[in-house]
Amino acid sequence: MNKYAIYHRPESNYCFAYDSKTVTLRIRFEHGEQLKSVSVLYNTKYQLANMQYRKQLTFLCTDGTFDYYATTLKLTDSRLAYVFEIITDKTYYFCEVGLKEQYDFSVAYYDSFQFAYINESDTIQNVSWLNNAVFYQIFVDRFASASSKNKSYINAKWGDAPTPQSFFGGDLDGIVNNLDYIQGLGATALYLTPIFKSKSNHKYDIIDYYQVDEMFGGNDALARLVKQCHARGIKVVLDAVFNHVSEQFEPFQDVLKNGKESKYFNWFVIDGDSISNAKDNYCCFAECKYMPKLNTNNGDVQQYLLDIAEYWIRQYDIDGWRLDVSDEVSHKFWRAMRKRVKSIKKQAVLIGENWHNSETYLNGDQFDGIMNYGITKAMLDYWVNKTVDEKGWANDINAQLMRYTDITNGMMFNLLDCHDTHRFFTLVNKSIPALICALACLVFLPGSVNLYYGTEILTEGGFDPDSRRTFDWDRVNNLAYQETSERIVALLNLKKQPAIQKGTVRVFSKNNCLVIERKCSEQILTLYVGKGNSGTIGNTTISFNLDDDMRQGWFAIKGDLL
Amino acid sequence: MNKYAIYHRPESNYCFAYDSKTVTLRIRFEHGEQLKSVSVLYNTKYQLANMQYRKQLTFLCTDGTFDYYATTLKLTDSRLAYVFEIITDKTYYFCEVGLKEQYDFSVAYYDSFQFAYINESDTIQNVSWLNNAVFYQIFVDRFASASSKNKSYINAKWGDAPTPQSFFGGDLDGIVNNLDYIQGLGATALYLTPIFKSKSNHKYDIIDYYQVDEMFGGNDALARLVKQCHARGIKVVLDAVFNHVSEQFEPFQDVLKNGKESKYFNWFVIDGDSISNAKDNYCCFAECKYMPKLNTNNGDVQQYLLDIAEYWIRQYDIDGWRLDVSDEVSHKFWRAMRKRVKSIKKQAVLIGENWHNSETYLNGDQFDGIMNYGITKAMLDYWVNKTVDEKGWANDINAQLMRYTDITNGMMFNLLDCHDTHRFFTLVNKSIPALICALACLVFLPGSVNLYYGTEILTEGGFDPDSRRTFDWDRVNNLAYQETSERIVALLNLKKQPAIQKGTVRVFSKNNCLVIERKCSEQILTLYVGKGNSGTIGNTTISFNLDDDMRQGWFAIKGDLL
Repeated sequence: MNKYAIYHRPESNYCFAYDSKTVTLRIRFEHGEQLKSVSVLYNTKYQLANMQYRKQLTFLCTDGTFDYYATTLKLTDSRLAYVFEIITDKTYYFCEVGLKEQYDFSVAYYDSFQFAYINESDTIQNVSWLNNAVFYQIFVDRFASASSKNKSYINAKWGDAPTPQSFFGGDLDGIVNNLDYIQGLGATALYLTPIFKSKSNHKYDIIDYYQVDEMFGGNDALARLVKQCHARGIKVVLDAVFNHVSEQFEPFQDVLKNGKESKYFNWFVIDGDSISNAKDNYCCFAECKYMPKLNTNNGDVQQYLLDIAEYWIRQYDIDGWRLDVSDEVSHKFWRAMRKRVKSIKKQAVLIGENWHNSETYLNGDQFDGIMNYGITKAMLDYWVNKTVDEKGWANDINAQLMRYTDITNGMMFNLLDCHDTHRFFTLVNKSIPALICALACLVFLPGSVNLYYGTEILTEGGFDPDSRRTFDWDRVNNLAYQETSERIVALLNLKKQPAIQKGTVRVFSKNNCLVIERKCSEQILTLYVGKGNSGTIGNTTISFNLDDDMRQGWFAIKGDLL
Repeated sequence: MNKYAIYHRPESNYCFAYDSKTVTLRIRFEHGEQLKSVSVLYNTKYQLANMQYRKQLTFLCTDGTFDYYATTLKLTDSRLAYVFEIITDKTYYFCEVGLKEQYDFSVAYYDSFQFAYINESDTIQNVSWLNNAVFYQIFVDRFASASSKNKSYINAKWGDAPTPQSFFGGDLDGIVNNLDYIQGLGATALYLTPIFKSKSNHKYDIIDYYQVDEMFGGNDALARLVKQCHARGIKVVLDAVFNHVSEQFEPFQDVLKNGKESKYFNWFVIDGDSISNAKDNYCCFAECKYMPKLNTNNGDVQQYLLDIAEYWIRQYDIDGWRLDVSDEVSHKFWRAMRKRVKSIKKQAVLIGENWHNSETYLNGDQFDGIMNYGITKAMLDYWVNKTVDEKGWANDINAQLMRYTDITNGMMFNLLDCHDTHRFFTLVNKSIPALICALACLVFLPGSVNLYYGTEILTEGGFDPDSRRTFDWDRVNNLAYQETSERIVALLNLKKQPAIQKGTVRVFSKNNCLVIERKCSEQILTLYVGKGNSGTIGNTTISFNLDDDMRQGWFAIKGDLL
């Protein structure tokens, strides 16, 4: 046995509680390790020396490097101590200090694993609406315009290729006017890129956090939008840009003017007593000097931002925040943010823009989920970069699922693309089957799914600013796009299926097919995605959902829809 | 290369910051892996694709299963992204998604490692007085009595073998009267087991958290003690029993009487609407029904306890809390506790009673350190259980040091024994050399060292209650104990040496010797501990510090004391 491969860690993605009496344990081995059995020997920490309960773990998945086994324990006491028993040709014990051939339970209080007491307030709380949410993400300037009156700032014609400086005139009432359309797509939530006062089209450089930009219709337009959305059961998530501000932001202007004398001096991260003329001595977003970084280690800044987070929930009833550049803001701040937001609206969500492994943000004390770029990358590697085959794809998806707890996986914001990437449809060289199949996979995975505006009408686009083109309303009723659009809607509607909403997940490959199986007590649904014309998978009967001309790639769903 | 053995995790014991520009990285390999070089390729997350700085890691230590390499980076920008380059016969890259033979830096924004932004408020803050603190731990009823007046509760004669119900009459003024003695031992801090109102001798079942027990002299005696200690530069740490209370605790009595109608009903963890006559339906400490568990998930309980934590610091100027059964109390509560305590007195300490790996408590947001039972166990395995040889001992110590960041290691509460264990001197069959040598090791390790009262006069004792015997004052001036006592004092005084206070640490074995090397810019000190009569270590010149009759074990220190 490769003892170096074995891994487990209490209070992590390897050991997490649903409530004070229900715990899932995972353990990792080298891929292909021949195990006769893996069991957990457990009891309360005060009784483990005297007697051990036993439960066998079952194979969960592989990421190609490691195999994962798991089980869920139903406890009668919240004070769990445990040791793994691993049987190959020999019997081993895996405890806090490693792998042993004997284990002396009489000193288990020194070196068993333990989850000393499962406190409810430390468990990750599920926000159930996220489990099957279909987000429609809108870059507001580019979706729809209710009116072009008084919009002297417009400098581009709807349909033109966008530049970094283009303004097309989209606004919130444009969204309100098209909620029938959005609802018709199966969207259950909107995610809007920033809407507060700002000089740019993207508005990630905010001047006033208490004003919806007049370009977008001002605060009243937001009130109308939220009201209309809620009447249709659609949630509204806004973009919280708390890492940085616009250089026009008043406190920053005050620091520019007054240097160290400004009461806002410590709101920013400045090297020296004032901001230099060259503006090279303060921290900013990326290398954009027009977006000075806020010092979220400062208590006043924290209070200022928390009040904003509260204001829009309390006054405008929004349903949560997507958190821009969240991995550069302090954990301390996000903990305070969660506390404030959840105390006002328990089901309001916090979705981080973290591109990397985010274990340290996803333990129930900070975010509910993140923009799941790990999954995005796995999708790109299979469909676009072609660096992995079907097996590699399944491995990569499993590696992502194993990063986090099952509870967190159910709250992830899964996406093929967004305003910060190329359009997926463009990356797959406009292959409709590839788009459809990738989206089918995304829909089948735990968590929410994001539909970036226009994907349903095959909008193309390279990297920013090209991924932010205007929505082509002419395509909506154009028969040439209707079939694709309907397929996408059908797929998105699958999110309502119980197995997809709350079932367990198994991801693997079989005969060069991608397979995702979701299973709950009422239902088993299995997605098969393949390439070429062949559609048989062993003895499995597959009914194709796509027409012949889409056989460049195909998918099929086995199981009864409810 | 055993790719399964390689491990690294950002924002953990493998990657931690001292300040916003200084980061230590560790990486793990299979023990004995032949590496030509290990380097980190790094830059800001926004520049890593374009250019990579390079720094080579050096071998840090082995735990016998894994080898650890480390380096410390001095950054110019707090936004770190990085990939490890590992050269054996081939070149490998280790990133967030595992080991690769090529690494494409152009997509590093997807899968490099990153510490996206080092926020000062998330860094672990060093409490410098802990780095070389010598604690003298006192079980108050058993150390010294200033007066036996009005102590009708005394039911045992000083010197008798203690039973679970014995009261001997020790008190806080007894400690005050003996501060010359304590200071003479080199103690820089007191850790007192609980002192608040309680019916038991150990007082872990508290009735009133605002009253120092009259048995111990009441609140005024504490005021005298703290004042006298501070006048001598000695800190005072009290025991915070926040996991559970006495069944006599008024809110619990109220629940007993009024069941669900009691406003304190949710202060406890009760299964049902009232406490049953059999008292079998509420959570308690261990299986002690006279110690009902507090529900620290409850906001009112949290506020109640936080106010207590604040009161004794603010009103009596104590220097911190040792946290009883801290692993069963919620992380959420400990975060609030840290915030409250540090806002009043930044250098006040929080030391958890966690017996197991406590990563989830030691990230700078909860405790400063814990009672380091992992090290205790390593000591016992070598000196008492004899389950490991010198190499095994070094491996075990290194495994413990690798659990936590170097900053945390410097704040650990290291102990050979305490009121909850057998006395170490008894476990080593009264071998003075063994005691002295083990203590020498403990002194040389990073962190504070605990001297359990009476160790210096060779007090014996098995498990509770025997480990809580009365202090034998007759031995203090008895020449038979003086030599040992002086050796212990000399050892404890080594904690003042710069290398031991703040130096790097290397733990290994050589020629059957235990070796601990501490190194800072001013000084290198190396401790050698061996068995038998032999004392040469290669070409190293060793001068023994112990007399011939103590050669059952010996130690020597190389390097100049400052």
